[in-house]
Amino acid sequence: MNYCFGVDIGGTTVKMGLFQFDGALIEKWEIKTRTENEGAAILPDVAEAIRKKLAEYELEKENILGIGVGVPAPVSENGVVNGSANLGWKYKEVKHELEDLTGIVVKVGNDANVAALGEMWKGGGLGNKNMIMVTLGTGVGGGVIVGGHILSGSNGAGGEIGHICVNYEETESCGCGSFGCLEQYASATGIVRLTKKRLAKDDKASILRNSEVSAKTVFDAVKEGDELAIEIAEEFGRYLGYALANLCVITDPSVIVIGGGVSKAGDVLFTYIKKYFEQRVFFANKDVKFALAQLGNDAGICGSAKLILD
Amino acid sequence: MNYCFGVDIGGTTVKMGLFQFDGALIEKWEIKTRTENEGAAILPDVAEAIRKKLAEYELEKENILGIGVGVPAPVSENGVVNGSANLGWKYKEVKHELEDLTGIVVKVGNDANVAALGEMWKGGGLGNKNMIMVTLGTGVGGGVIVGGHILSGSNGAGGEIGHICVNYEETESCGCGSFGCLEQYASATGIVRLTKKRLAKDDKASILRNSEVSAKTVFDAVKEGDELAIEIAEEFGRYLGYALANLCVITDPSVIVIGGGVSKAGDVLFTYIKKYFEQRVFFANKDVKFALAQLGNDAGICGSAKLILD
Repeated sequence: MNYCFGVDIGGTTVKMGLFQFDGALIEKWEIKTRTENEGAAILPDVAEAIRKKLAEYELEKENILGIGVGVPAPVSENGVVNGSANLGWKYKEVKHELEDLTGIVVKVGNDANVAALGEMWKGGGLGNKNMIMVTLGTGVGGGVIVGGHILSGSNGAGGEIGHICVNYEETESCGCGSFGCLEQYASATGIVRLTKKRLAKDDKASILRNSEVSAKTVFDAVKEGDELAIEIAEEFGRYLGYALANLCVITDPSVIVIGGGVSKAGDVLFTYIKKYFEQRVFFANKDVKFALAQLGNDAGICGSAKLILD
Repeated sequence: MNYCFGVDIGGTTVKMGLFQFDGALIEKWEIKTRTENEGAAILPDVAEAIRKKLAEYELEKENILGIGVGVPAPVSENGVVNGSANLGWKYKEVKHELEDLTGIVVKVGNDANVAALGEMWKGGGLGNKNMIMVTLGTGVGGGVIVGGHILSGSNGAGGEIGHICVNYEETESCGCGSFGCLEQYASATGIVRLTKKRLAKDDKASILRNSEVSAKTVFDAVKEGDELAIEIAEEFGRYLGYALANLCVITDPSVIVIGGGVSKAGDVLFTYIKKYFEQRVFFANKDVKFALAQLGNDAGICGSAKLILD
């Protein structure tokens, strides 16, 4: 029997999974990410965790098809990262270093792209080979899957959906330094920003004036019919729906998968996204399906494993 | 010695090329496209032209690696077209039908995507595997190449760059039925439209008031320092430059190739495109190169051949 590991390196924890060659997840666990000292211990810690797991299951290196790794940074074709703020890394030959430490073949991808691959394989995109995934969390992340493979591009920076410019009139800057990025309107943080601006504009009554403002409270208020909250949802839906229509005309997916904390609002999201998406979608893309992400925090380990099993 | 054919089926002529397996073009020629009777004769005519060429060069079918075909329509993965207005086709199993007629393996792609592949192989994108091609002709066409292959998507409708929405306030409709498509501003027709609107706005002096308005006369006037023409070029550059920045954040190419009739204006185009591109490009994409297309009308036959030689 052959196996592989899926490893998702985040700024706080490293999520790890042991998979059978047929894709079944045997066990998943986490270790702490030690970011001090430019993250020098991260890959040795991963290698040590793998060594222990092999011993626990009485597996030999020869039984392991490879280690797939997702990291929060653009990743070059040969598995090199040129700095990751979340991990403390500067230039880091991730593939080379982890192969040296383990004696096992390693493949590396960007964490958001790898999560998209995981959702295609076992989650909201199951059965599709052409997919857009949008993760609406603190920021907006995502990935584009083309013919079953990650669109990673020439710098490993493909699928940076959060930084599509959707408003050329914006005067507040995005974290990336530019202005008008999708992330400024469709992330959890962006929804709070839109809400605060809207609340400050006039005195219109709203449930939101009496609660802590978050993406959750906004969409809860939408469900209760709060007019001001609905205005925010319309604005959110317009920016995201239009951006998705433009993404489709370039990548022609069969499904759009939406994940991240904001997606917990559920189907109400789709009401506002689809309304604007349908206004602008190119006729050849009109049959694209929408789905919620299903794997949650497991998307990364699943997609990392899929890098190996492909 | 092995060979292949590259075939580019247009609404007026079918361009054909015989290539060696190493990519050298042996001969190119054209036949008429007979679009009458729902284009029923088109594929038999192509098959007959290939039969004659084989006889002329004393080649056997066994020497032919395949026939690559570009057609003006979205093409499904199995080589089926669901209607092509330019050719008169309704549902047409292009791959299947041409294989039956010739006894040779056939691969089929969208003409604009295939032309992009040709430019990557032998033209403005030579040496790159991740590329955006934009063709500024009567309309705006294009293609996205990812890892050396065409991004064709789930309906064969990927890379429809001309139908990215770049202006959500537009009230005139695009040929596709939507509003604000890039094609309405950056095609030859679009530039004429912008110019006529600008000329009608006030009485500002301009060379363009005394000449026939075309993309060529506009950019010629820009080169002579005509202020009104420069306003048009700025508008063109803003829409196209911003759209290309958004394309890059999704597809992360190493080169953007610009072709089509409008590109004959030459380097002056890049001045206006790059000015706005650089205002909005995501930091990870800032090193992307710009290049002019080089193959002209041969891009289609080259890209079609490359479908086979890949």
